[in-house]
Amino acid sequence: MENNTAKNKALGTSSIEYGQPVIIMGSGSVVGQMENEGPLSGSFDKVSDDKNDMFGADSWEKAESALQKEAVALTLSKTGAEAKDIRFLYAGDLLGQNIASSFGLVDYNIPLFGLYGACSTCGESLCLGSMCVAAGYADRVISLTSSHYASAQKEFRYPLEYGGQRPLYASWTVTGSAGFLLQNINAPAKSVSGKTIKNEYEGKYRKKVGITGVTIGKIEDFGIKDSFNMGCAMAPAAAWTIAANLRDFGRTPKDYDAVFTGDLGSVGQQALWNLLSQEKIDISDRHYDCGMIIYDSGKQDVHAGGSGCGCSAVVLSAYILPKLADGEWKRVLFVPTGALLNKTSFNEGQNVPGIAHGVVIEAL
Amino acid sequence: MENNTAKNKALGTSSIEYGQPVIIMGSGSVVGQMENEGPLSGSFDKVSDDKNDMFGADSWEKAESALQKEAVALTLSKTGAEAKDIRFLYAGDLLGQNIASSFGLVDYNIPLFGLYGACSTCGESLCLGSMCVAAGYADRVISLTSSHYASAQKEFRYPLEYGGQRPLYASWTVTGSAGFLLQNINAPAKSVSGKTIKNEYEGKYRKKVGITGVTIGKIEDFGIKDSFNMGCAMAPAAAWTIAANLRDFGRTPKDYDAVFTGDLGSVGQQALWNLLSQEKIDISDRHYDCGMIIYDSGKQDVHAGGSGCGCSAVVLSAYILPKLADGEWKRVLFVPTGALLNKTSFNEGQNVPGIAHGVVIEAL
Repeated sequence: MENNTAKNKALGTSSIEYGQPVIIMGSGSVVGQMENEGPLSGSFDKVSDDKNDMFGADSWEKAESALQKEAVALTLSKTGAEAKDIRFLYAGDLLGQNIASSFGLVDYNIPLFGLYGACSTCGESLCLGSMCVAAGYADRVISLTSSHYASAQKEFRYPLEYGGQRPLYASWTVTGSAGFLLQNINAPAKSVSGKTIKNEYEGKYRKKVGITGVTIGKIEDFGIKDSFNMGCAMAPAAAWTIAANLRDFGRTPKDYDAVFTGDLGSVGQQALWNLLSQEKIDISDRHYDCGMIIYDSGKQDVHAGGSGCGCSAVVLSAYILPKLADGEWKRVLFVPTGALLNKTSFNEGQNVPGIAHGVVIEAL
Repeated sequence: MENNTAKNKALGTSSIEYGQPVIIMGSGSVVGQMENEGPLSGSFDKVSDDKNDMFGADSWEKAESALQKEAVALTLSKTGAEAKDIRFLYAGDLLGQNIASSFGLVDYNIPLFGLYGACSTCGESLCLGSMCVAAGYADRVISLTSSHYASAQKEFRYPLEYGGQRPLYASWTVTGSAGFLLQNINAPAKSVSGKTIKNEYEGKYRKKVGITGVTIGKIEDFGIKDSFNMGCAMAPAAAWTIAANLRDFGRTPKDYDAVFTGDLGSVGQQALWNLLSQEKIDISDRHYDCGMIIYDSGKQDVHAGGSGCGCSAVVLSAYILPKLADGEWKRVLFVPTGALLNKTSFNEGQNVPGIAHGVVIEAL
């Protein structure tokens, strides 16, 4: 493999610009029924055929593992790659000790980096996966994340059986998982068994898509103590990462056709705009939040919008990447956002800090 | 910064050999009282002055966060670096949603990659941290992990107040944390404030130390269902990673002066040797387990040995690195081992698979 790693550049506070784009060869998405009843209906690769979204499993946790297994299977089948073509997996989820990932991925026999960045994990996995590929450490990796509404409620709040009330500023955890096959631009075209690994977007759309840079986020703690108010807990981290990205790359918001946050929801979006305006940054004419895209908040009873590691992942897979490939946008900044808490930290009265990682994705 | 990334090589299944070593500039370790009553007494940088190992906090979880904060503070003070000299943190712990790391590290304002590899996390953080530095993405990062006996018991088994009995093959979670400052060999000598960042081992010992390669582990599931029997749950993963490392680098056990696993304990050690013997690999004359080094199992009531993310981390910091620097060993393979479970997966009857990541560390 030809080595172009010398052209990668460490920029500013926490960004990296790749000398050559890391190609997103394809992506597989799988969601629950409710996700497919929203505005993106019909865009996902697979939808649960069971109204409880159990995916054939007998517990919520195993259902989430089934989501991850399926997301990898779809990503492989759409690109024609096999498990042995994938050098590393970068994966994480919301459950304690990442069990959705561990049990979902064990059968693939692919070396694994387990990650935790709460709902920012999709960004973290794309950052680390693309850093690995751009450095020439791997021809191909898969980055993936998942969340499941019922397993997340049990893990963080109340089991569904309690029938607890949710405040209007709360968000709804997305049941979904998506995987992304990242490939080095100089990787051999053939798989280990001699088949051609194909680019999902080539032929079907006008452009290919790739990751051209990343901005790693830091923890921001503005003192939010309400674990239902995820949007405001995460907005400061999103603001920091967006501002750092613009500063590090020497860009203005106009250099992006769109900026996507992960799951701030309608309440967090306003907080983000307010925070950025203090730094004279205005993204309001090009900002979208994956949590506000995935559900129709007027018709679906989701309150502030969608959330969860799976939210930004399936929106990227089913909505953002196809639109980039279709030429609607040239360059987007994708910033999944995470709230750092667990049941114990919340019950012990600790704050809910946030973190957000930024990924620059371009039509090529 | 001069760029030598082109000399890095992806080897075999899952290994990377660095063109130039990633320098371990220094390391800070902090432990509980019991850890300092074992064979490594006096080797740690800081010891709890409180018999409950609360480190000034009012909960076990916050005590573990205090451990991480202290480990970074020690690592910085020993090398003369400041937080703003560190581009990224690679950190994880055993608690649900990594809260020990999130709350322990928030005040440093350093961009963070949150990791989860159970007790293999020390290996995962050194792999990802060194991959980042060797790729030229950062001059300096800190890799760190922690565990706390009391927070781990509460998280995985029974709160201490229950007074539950432990079987003789169970291990004892180490209360401790260690950080490792990894530096690019071509990084500027001065910190951002113009002070010289010093190598802890230079002058004090005969050699410097550095990471020259890594082997990423995959999940191995041999069907163990007993969450107390961590040693046997993790031995297959350690065996896979050690065999992969030898194969990928074209080495035999004799090419290492010592092979360290993380926390297999006495029961898991025998399982590891048996598994490796099936592949005609014999490491028995040079294998050590950090869990068997940290406590005196005859005098301290720890049964099979120590465990936890902090176990391998503090043994590396306080014992292995100084011996490498002193010239006792030239090259070691360090393989922290993790068991992938949580309370729910265990209670739902799922297996306890393992994972282990390998780090090649050499005297330079």
